[in-house]
Amino acid sequence: MKVVSVSTSKRVEFIDITSRIEEIIIKDKINKGLCFIFCPHTTAGLTINENADPSVRKDIIEQLEDMVPSDKSYSHSEGNADSHVKASLMGSSLNVIIEDSSLKLGTWQGIYFCEFDGPRKRQVYVKLVDC
Amino acid sequence: MKVVSVSTSKRVEFIDITSRIEEIIIKDKINKGLCFIFCPHTTAGLTINENADPSVRKDIIEQLEDMVPSDKSYSHSEGNADSHVKASLMGSSLNVIIEDSSLKLGTWQGIYFCEFDGPRKRQVYVKLVDC
Amino acid sequence: MKVVSVSTSKRVEFIDITSRIEEIIIKDKINKGLCFIFCPHTTAGLTINENADPSVRKDIIEQLEDMVPSDKSYSHSEGNADSHVKASLMGSSLNVIIEDSSLKLGTWQGIYFCEFDGPRKRQVYVKLVDC
Repeated sequence: MKVVSVSTSKRVEFIDITSRIEEIIIKDKINKGLCFIFCPHTTAGLTINENADPSVRKDIIEQLEDMVPSDKSYSHSEGNADSHVKASLMGSSLNVIIEDSSLKLGTWQGIYFCEFDGPRKRQVYVKLVDC
Repeated sequence: MKVVSVSTSKRVEFIDITSRIEEIIIKDKINKGLCFIFCPHTTAGLTINENADPSVRKDIIEQLEDMVPSDKSYSHSEGNADSHVKASLMGSSLNVIIEDSSLKLGTWQGIYFCEFDGPRKRQVYVKLVDC
Repeated sequence: MKVVSVSTSKRVEFIDITSRIEEIIIKDKINKGLCFIFCPHTTAGLTINENADPSVRKDIIEQLEDMVPSDKSYSHSEGNADSHVKASLMGSSLNVIIEDSSLKLGTWQGIYFCEFDGPRKRQVYVKLVDC
């Protein structure tokens, strides 16, 4: 297992970690296989979406806020109840196929770490399987 | 890795791809193992849900539209911002266990390709692991 | 493949199944590898979220109800259309890395079976891979 460290600078922010994962694949010399990505935090998640126009990330963040308002009254008293809900909506685990020593993503896809309660120092776990 | 081609005929549409994946398992003679399914598009996703009553798909599609309206004003200017949000809500990757040369799904489960910005020609990546 | 049986006692309820999965890892003597978890039901799902303050689960459940009301009129006539939508929002499959014979979760993470149409007798499929 490898660990990718991520530093977030806002309360809510999507950070592209695709190249960080590609580096591990190159270093580990995995030509063909599977890449498992895991977010070990309960107020952050993972998603795959557009890597070109940054307004797509803005729209996803704003729409999640619209659906799960941060300023609503919740039971959990730490002021980050919305962050927990948003983390479960995005999810904690992903798997991507590896071919030709590269993640087999679509042309417009990037892998995003979804911070919902930053700024914080975060980690992403990555496990590669040669198969 | 195998590729399943999917042609969608509407803007939003859930297409059952279960039998297409089962065919690959039979052809590859995988008796026991894991099936990894990946959607390489940013305005489409994957989900597993009811394969019997088609009204369930209709309800999921309508409820997603209720939560993420297509006619709202978004930053992304291509008219498909809602499609990107819906894709992230459904997710891009799935894994299903294989036993007896068959997907180990529940009785009422089908695997759906979720088109949110069709009609288009789409692809789904499938990787099988014998284990 | 191993099966974890879960008995739910309410219509909507999140049940921590982490220790049940850890038991399988110990019994199967998997030191390093991957754990694949699958929910074979269409009105239930899986999520990973906070294992400490139970109010987080309460907030997720109430927020999902706010987004997908159970008392709305839907096409599906079994009175559980909202349960199907919520199941797709949480998702059916998860993967977690195994290290030192233990799930490599974050400190505050637990794995939850998300019942959306209980009370029922349910199952969760678990497959471990030594790698």
